[in-house]
Amino acid sequence: MPTQSKSDKSEPTKSEPAIWLRKDLLDTADLNLADFNLIFETTDAMIEVRERPIARTTTLRGTTLATLFYENSTRTRASFEIAGKALGADVVNLSASQSSVGKGESLIDTVRTLEAIGADILVLRHPLSGASTLASKYTNASVINAGDGMHAHPTQALLDLFTIKQHLGELSGRKIVIVGDILHSRVARSNIWALLTLGAQITLCGPATLLPKYFTQHKSDLQNVTVTTNLKTALSNADVVMTLRLQKERQRNSIIPSLSEYIRNYQINNDTIALAKSTAIVMHPGPVNAGFEISQEVAEGKQSVISAQVTNGVAIRMALLYLFATRTTDFPA
Amino acid sequence: MPTQSKSDKSEPTKSEPAIWLRKDLLDTADLNLADFNLIFETTDAMIEVRERPIARTTTLRGTTLATLFYENSTRTRASFEIAGKALGADVVNLSASQSSVGKGESLIDTVRTLEAIGADILVLRHPLSGASTLASKYTNASVINAGDGMHAHPTQALLDLFTIKQHLGELSGRKIVIVGDILHSRVARSNIWALLTLGAQITLCGPATLLPKYFTQHKSDLQNVTVTTNLKTALSNADVVMTLRLQKERQRNSIIPSLSEYIRNYQINNDTIALAKSTAIVMHPGPVNAGFEISQEVAEGKQSVISAQVTNGVAIRMALLYLFATRTTDFPA
Amino acid sequence: MPTQSKSDKSEPTKSEPAIWLRKDLLDTADLNLADFNLIFETTDAMIEVRERPIARTTTLRGTTLATLFYENSTRTRASFEIAGKALGADVVNLSASQSSVGKGESLIDTVRTLEAIGADILVLRHPLSGASTLASKYTNASVINAGDGMHAHPTQALLDLFTIKQHLGELSGRKIVIVGDILHSRVARSNIWALLTLGAQITLCGPATLLPKYFTQHKSDLQNVTVTTNLKTALSNADVVMTLRLQKERQRNSIIPSLSEYIRNYQINNDTIALAKSTAIVMHPGPVNAGFEISQEVAEGKQSVISAQVTNGVAIRMALLYLFATRTTDFPA
Repeated sequence: MPTQSKSDKSEPTKSEPAIWLRKDLLDTADLNLADFNLIFETTDAMIEVRERPIARTTTLRGTTLATLFYENSTRTRASFEIAGKALGADVVNLSASQSSVGKGESLIDTVRTLEAIGADILVLRHPLSGASTLASKYTNASVINAGDGMHAHPTQALLDLFTIKQHLGELSGRKIVIVGDILHSRVARSNIWALLTLGAQITLCGPATLLPKYFTQHKSDLQNVTVTTNLKTALSNADVVMTLRLQKERQRNSIIPSLSEYIRNYQINNDTIALAKSTAIVMHPGPVNAGFEISQEVAEGKQSVISAQVTNGVAIRMALLYLFATRTTDFPA
Repeated sequence: MPTQSKSDKSEPTKSEPAIWLRKDLLDTADLNLADFNLIFETTDAMIEVRERPIARTTTLRGTTLATLFYENSTRTRASFEIAGKALGADVVNLSASQSSVGKGESLIDTVRTLEAIGADILVLRHPLSGASTLASKYTNASVINAGDGMHAHPTQALLDLFTIKQHLGELSGRKIVIVGDILHSRVARSNIWALLTLGAQITLCGPATLLPKYFTQHKSDLQNVTVTTNLKTALSNADVVMTLRLQKERQRNSIIPSLSEYIRNYQINNDTIALAKSTAIVMHPGPVNAGFEISQEVAEGKQSVISAQVTNGVAIRMALLYLFATRTTDFPA
Repeated sequence: MPTQSKSDKSEPTKSEPAIWLRKDLLDTADLNLADFNLIFETTDAMIEVRERPIARTTTLRGTTLATLFYENSTRTRASFEIAGKALGADVVNLSASQSSVGKGESLIDTVRTLEAIGADILVLRHPLSGASTLASKYTNASVINAGDGMHAHPTQALLDLFTIKQHLGELSGRKIVIVGDILHSRVARSNIWALLTLGAQITLCGPATLLPKYFTQHKSDLQNVTVTTNLKTALSNADVVMTLRLQKERQRNSIIPSLSEYIRNYQINNDTIALAKSTAIVMHPGPVNAGFEISQEVAEGKQSVISAQVTNGVAIRMALLYLFATRTTDFPA
């Protein structure tokens, strides 16, 4: 959890120049308003590239991107790979099942090896919270956290925010409702810190067992976060409804009483989405459990921006790769 | 099983222009004579590319090919990857063991994700018959079926036919014998529909338990298909002997009495190949079980075109990728 | 084990022209002095490429490199992939878990398939000693052995030797100590043959159960190899200390009495490294078992060149890919 309050991060940024100085992207909690603006402006340029007849450049020719995934993934890994190739970078994929991780090679050793063989940027997904932070300390390569345990998933949050801006304009003052298993969700966590920095009003909604206690305990610092178990209250006047993937295993572990009760109280479907603004957009980080946390109709309906999220994910990652590959490297340690 | 008869498909094609309008390649049963001719002409051009000192072009620069394999494969997956790279496309590989398929992500969701991240062409292998057809309905990307259950494997059939033409000229009137486990073979099925459209005479030969009933039940429609359990009858006057990989598990399941009996009655070896024309070629889709369905001597002998099949596979796939990437997209839905 | 004696290999080479004629790299035992010199000179050029602002060329455009790994690997596989891409080659990766190897496809069949689909160079890692030699006999593609059982790992030896030369100059007369499980180490074996050809003095040190008997039995042929169980004797006056990864399973198999006894007698740490020359360098093929065969302090200390080994590995592999892709092919069979 970040120790800075929201105001510490956002205020001094107004006068900062739009230069990328950061070595790593570990979480959205580390980013200030200028960072978000620079990332989003760069993403706009990348979307323009992707819309060209030949949706590819050679900008990052000679840059090597290594993806290192200790958990399964389709969309995030492929999204980074396509982003890298669209900029002309060389992409090397490593997954836990194939690599020396099978020999018990440590994360630190692997990261050092990847730097030594020429990787400029490492994209890391790992089941343990803090893995990217640890990795970043042992390499001069840039580390992009592609999901670490229940901690953070900053590129997902960035593509979510970019998608909101694309559909609704500025985020300041917007009511964003996150529904579902917030307690265990790195996507929710990274979205919350980013949304706070961008001045949104956040409502977290789900069964009490799936809500984090942090926000109710730090009310004075986090006035823009509301926590409720009542979906009707949550959705009232909502601009954005973010649904989260429900891990069905939670039921087995008795964290939720039953799937049917969860669906009855928290599923986003035609009935419940009607409680939000008629202009509200519906988001999901994927893969969707259609019929559980969200109905098929809503997931594929007019208010859904799920496909736009996936497409924007490539542009966001292109922007990040570009910023890291071309960053000013005489940064303070 | 296609419901069109052979004559419905091949006759109107003679006047069709040589333009590729199709969105997907799901099976050879969907192709007419003009399609086959266009694919084979394009393949000739691709073979010319592969014979250049630098066997690579940038024709498909900016095109993204995603291979999505839910079954193991060496030759088919690598063949598509090399074909894509030889045309300058970006290739992203996804396999079931590494991807979110492990999380129970549905095929439809995966296909939509791949389209949303920018895949123009999806190459899909899946253990369930009909998987490619299902996938094709949920994406605007082109779907190329690289094998779906026991249903179809059209690129294998195309490379087989191209190889026959390369060695023997036109297929019309040629006697093609397919020997082995035809009942469970997607390779046999796709070859049969293609050979019928091209006017070949087909003989299917194997133990009764490995022969499909369809062809004996639809004799009037399928006059060019003969079914027999007698290898000697089958091979008499044969121009082409297509052997199929014998799944050894069939024995355990009591579908064949014993491997030794199968070998005695159906193995293609020096003795049995002598029953075909002396100019006959011997084919196998690979990987070969040498010593079972085919002897080592014949697999590596003068009549074998197995290596040519593999090499032609790259050129066929280059041709298909080229046709799909450059197709006229204002096609009827 | 090579049957040539050292003098047979190195003497006639002095007048040989610096042209690469070899089809394969199976072991360092096959290389003569001219080969080593040509590889190292080419590696120097590749290091210059890697130090350019855009560390990439298109020299091998149109060359296809296939990596075929039947064992897990991070550094070797990724090192070859980056080397290939840095020279503009197309790289196709195949691993045992994903490929038709799962169907029982034989190594020979796989190798032939890869050649037939256009692979010019095959990089093979396999758990069985001799696998690369076998593969090389069935393909016209160049085979580079990336580790076969306990037999050989020539590219590791080449990068080791290059790293020594980079730090200490010529190897002739240098004292190189290899410490640890030499009996089971393909890295040690390939280093020994290479070091002998380059005229180094070799000391092998470890518990008696982990030392090969070959060298004590062939003393007259191998005067430059000393074998000892005493680490102090071994390290005295050493220029290079090569540590080897300790397979912890050896303890379970009762080949070493206990890890703690091994550490007490053979670990390279601040105390033991002081027994070598003060200018000695410390090497390890990775991944390091820090705290077992080598202490963390030494592995990351001033005398360690472990990171340089990994970086040089890319340049060595670029040099080999370049030499194989551009070799004179009218070589004797």
